[in-house]
Amino acid sequence: MTWQSNAQGKRASLIELIPPKWRIPTSDIPSATRLRDFGEYICRFLDRRELEITNAPSSRILANIRSGEWTSVDVTRAFCHRASLAHQLTNCLSEVCFMDAEQRAKALDESFLRTGQTAGPLHGLPVSLKDRFNIEGLESACGYVSWLGEKKGENSEGVLVKRLRRMGAVFFVKTNVPMSMLMGETNNNIIGSTINPYNRNLSAGGASGGEGALLALKGSPLGWGSDIGLPVNGSVIGPMAGDLPTIEMAMKAVLDTFPWQDDCDVVEIPWREEKLQSIRSRMARPHERDGKLVFAVMSCDGNVQVHPPVQRAMSLVTKALLQRGYEVIEWQPPPHHDAVQILFQILGSTAGKEVRNAIDASGEPPVHQLQTWYDNDNVEPSSSAEFWDLCNQRDQYRSEYNNYWTSTREKTVAKRQVDGVIMPVAPTAAVEEGCFNYYTYSGIVNLLDYTSGSFPVTFADRSVDVEKPDHVPLNSTDRAVWHTYQKDLFDGAPGGLQVMGKRFEEEKIIGLMEALSSALQDFQIGQTGESTSPF
Amino acid sequence: MTWQSNAQGKRASLIELIPPKWRIPTSDIPSATRLRDFGEYICRFLDRRELEITNAPSSRILANIRSGEWTSVDVTRAFCHRASLAHQLTNCLSEVCFMDAEQRAKALDESFLRTGQTAGPLHGLPVSLKDRFNIEGLESACGYVSWLGEKKGENSEGVLVKRLRRMGAVFFVKTNVPMSMLMGETNNNIIGSTINPYNRNLSAGGASGGEGALLALKGSPLGWGSDIGLPVNGSVIGPMAGDLPTIEMAMKAVLDTFPWQDDCDVVEIPWREEKLQSIRSRMARPHERDGKLVFAVMSCDGNVQVHPPVQRAMSLVTKALLQRGYEVIEWQPPPHHDAVQILFQILGSTAGKEVRNAIDASGEPPVHQLQTWYDNDNVEPSSSAEFWDLCNQRDQYRSEYNNYWTSTREKTVAKRQVDGVIMPVAPTAAVEEGCFNYYTYSGIVNLLDYTSGSFPVTFADRSVDVEKPDHVPLNSTDRAVWHTYQKDLFDGAPGGLQVMGKRFEEEKIIGLMEALSSALQDFQIGQTGESTSPF
Repeated sequence: MTWQSNAQGKRASLIELIPPKWRIPTSDIPSATRLRDFGEYICRFLDRRELEITNAPSSRILANIRSGEWTSVDVTRAFCHRASLAHQLTNCLSEVCFMDAEQRAKALDESFLRTGQTAGPLHGLPVSLKDRFNIEGLESACGYVSWLGEKKGENSEGVLVKRLRRMGAVFFVKTNVPMSMLMGETNNNIIGSTINPYNRNLSAGGASGGEGALLALKGSPLGWGSDIGLPVNGSVIGPMAGDLPTIEMAMKAVLDTFPWQDDCDVVEIPWREEKLQSIRSRMARPHERDGKLVFAVMSCDGNVQVHPPVQRAMSLVTKALLQRGYEVIEWQPPPHHDAVQILFQILGSTAGKEVRNAIDASGEPPVHQLQTWYDNDNVEPSSSAEFWDLCNQRDQYRSEYNNYWTSTREKTVAKRQVDGVIMPVAPTAAVEEGCFNYYTYSGIVNLLDYTSGSFPVTFADRSVDVEKPDHVPLNSTDRAVWHTYQKDLFDGAPGGLQVMGKRFEEEKIIGLMEALSSALQDFQIGQTGESTSPF
Repeated sequence: MTWQSNAQGKRASLIELIPPKWRIPTSDIPSATRLRDFGEYICRFLDRRELEITNAPSSRILANIRSGEWTSVDVTRAFCHRASLAHQLTNCLSEVCFMDAEQRAKALDESFLRTGQTAGPLHGLPVSLKDRFNIEGLESACGYVSWLGEKKGENSEGVLVKRLRRMGAVFFVKTNVPMSMLMGETNNNIIGSTINPYNRNLSAGGASGGEGALLALKGSPLGWGSDIGLPVNGSVIGPMAGDLPTIEMAMKAVLDTFPWQDDCDVVEIPWREEKLQSIRSRMARPHERDGKLVFAVMSCDGNVQVHPPVQRAMSLVTKALLQRGYEVIEWQPPPHHDAVQILFQILGSTAGKEVRNAIDASGEPPVHQLQTWYDNDNVEPSSSAEFWDLCNQRDQYRSEYNNYWTSTREKTVAKRQVDGVIMPVAPTAAVEEGCFNYYTYSGIVNLLDYTSGSFPVTFADRSVDVEKPDHVPLNSTDRAVWHTYQKDLFDGAPGGLQVMGKRFEEEKIIGLMEALSSALQDFQIGQTGESTSPF
């Protein structure tokens, strides 16, 4: 067996697991010139009931299952169908288990019918997982051909997966990840590259790009992604969904199962409803000086300027927050870019030995995004003394950053420190395949071990987001990033942002995302007479 | 200036800061043959009022200051006096600031008299700190001659110190630490070795040995020590006191100031009163099968057997818990000893570069406890790949250990998992200077990042804790440790134990220590007609 045949076999087996009636002949799909956004296109393959189910937020799905209006089998089939379409359009899945999912849904339905009791708060809800999570009976190749072939056992399942199942979740797919799991684009030699469903010219981003594309096409009501955690070996897990109440429900449900009792890496912090309520109550009184929410905005990190659609998203959000009466200040923290190099030095301190070994084990080549790194084989792992020194630098920076944040108390009219910082997730609204090369906007959150929520704001629009010929680059990286922007190519790309909070502020961030969503909606209604917010 | 004159100057300056009337001529102190335990001896230098104050627990001190019965100046002077005596007897201090302390106490008294308001929950209470904490105006040599001479500035003070001061604490001394801060004995070339106040033949232990000796002689009502934290660069801080309510009060008071707001290394977990109350309510009903407390006991880690006094302490506690009606099972975890080697490999992964540099910078030699390590200079720092591998091993072990703990649910009559594990802190009841060489009993808690509370149980007693000539050693380390025991030499040494809980279980551990204290007291009254527990 060559690596090519292994990869090809896996790719084909995914398609074979999709019922023939759900398959789309490749030749039927219009070219990217004629069809850029799959959002509406996918709907033509779904019947009215499937659309009703898959367009519903998880709260309605769960309520309808509990009321007996829908069965979990109905719901599961509808999402299996939509997810399989999403995969055929964007390459977003890595594993499929529709048969198991349907059996599981059936068992849940029967038990509910018999006992009148649900299994838990997620009873009957299909849940998708990034490929890094192990599920019994499925592989976790994580983008390496050499990792194919091992069906995971029950003991390899982590606490999150077990807890989700215990609460009634129905696993039906796992989603595509990049080779190395460390890139901002989702590409590997098994599944290939995951395409951005809003604009097929562009990548879905990464490392949770498969999950992102699936959710954007409503192929799942709730997914789980992950991000780099520091120090050593950590990775942080978070829910992903098309609507905010699902994020809140999912976090609360998982924490209510006390996951720290079985996973010693989980910090014992229960769901703190009062923190969310406190933000909600302050949201409601933006004009009281003491209680008003205080946001900071950072449109540029001082090193690489953001593309016009992202710049416009920042501007939209700032105006929306000000119109609501919230306080908004400029964020001028200890510079991000140099600090984020510490993150990459820490991540690179083993010179990528594990990644290299996992690639080499099958004989596959690195994907093109990793070629330069891979060819650069004269890099020596750093010594542990250098590593400790990096950790010291990181801790020093965290401390400075924290002090800066605390000091904003003196800078605001409300005499409160900033509640959340609005900033880009990347300088671009998505990227062309192979072009993601500036990680500072998201890496800062990893370095600081802070909390962050990403949210949609607008879409790139060729009519307003025009190239600026008089743009003055700050440096060569800035120039390179800037020149990747072309208004026609990017038209329709999703322009999202993030709101960052301090460490362990998950409930607060959910509250701030509610405030942002509401302010944006009002603002856009005010501008156009109707809401165009994708929130 | 030679290192000798620097060290000698510092040592002399401490004595000079002690008022002449408080000094004890060295020739006055009886020899160790005639006087082994300083506990009573120190009292002869104190007047009735000083004794009343310094023998009082912090709750009474704080209450008497608030009622106006005592002033903070009275209290501070009394503790300054007793601490200065303790230092002259045991070498327990590294810094002294009696004049500042008295001024500070005076200011607190005046403000209280004027406003009727206290500064906070610690108003007027003298608080001692291990030398590692920076206090404005004092040095933090931490056992290195090369670090002498730099009076710390306000900005170098950590969040704990600032919070304690804000709550009304009066800093009056800092306490001695070992060169390197990583040894189980407190010795350096500046202050010298800290002596065990219960038995002058023995070391006070370490690394918080200065603090321990001071507290044992009631030279401070509340101290703060620290221990090794992992991963990288962490150290964990904890309160130390002669009575349990002080520990509880101190932890609660500090957490009530939200230290995580200013120190990003502090996890945002508030004081959880309900966790303590839950243990208290279960304490009260030992005979209810469901609610009864469940302890595990581990008298031997399978590698090194404990000395007779420690063995007796384990046996005493086990009997006391059973007599109370609590459930007690044997603790048979994934083996401790091999796992703790991971801790030392992690700590040693830089080959002690920082320690070596700090020693070499002044030209001083290493203390004899560090000589073998210091001479072994062909050790190379490990690579960061090895370091990450060690962290993986640590995480794997933590996970196994956590699973074992959870599995005890199936092994207990109460069908609950174990609440706390009683085990030795070391195989010996204190050690002769230079003999502490087995760290597994305490190192396991560092490796696991669990919670632990140390508590006194009994004292070595030459009449019952006899050498056992038929002892069968498990291995050469066990033989070596065993042979350091001599009943006459150890007579009077403190035989304490620890109770270990999972991660972030501080409130629970305080509750379990209450249960232990109460059970021990009852048991000893039952045995002898009077309480001999040193709790």
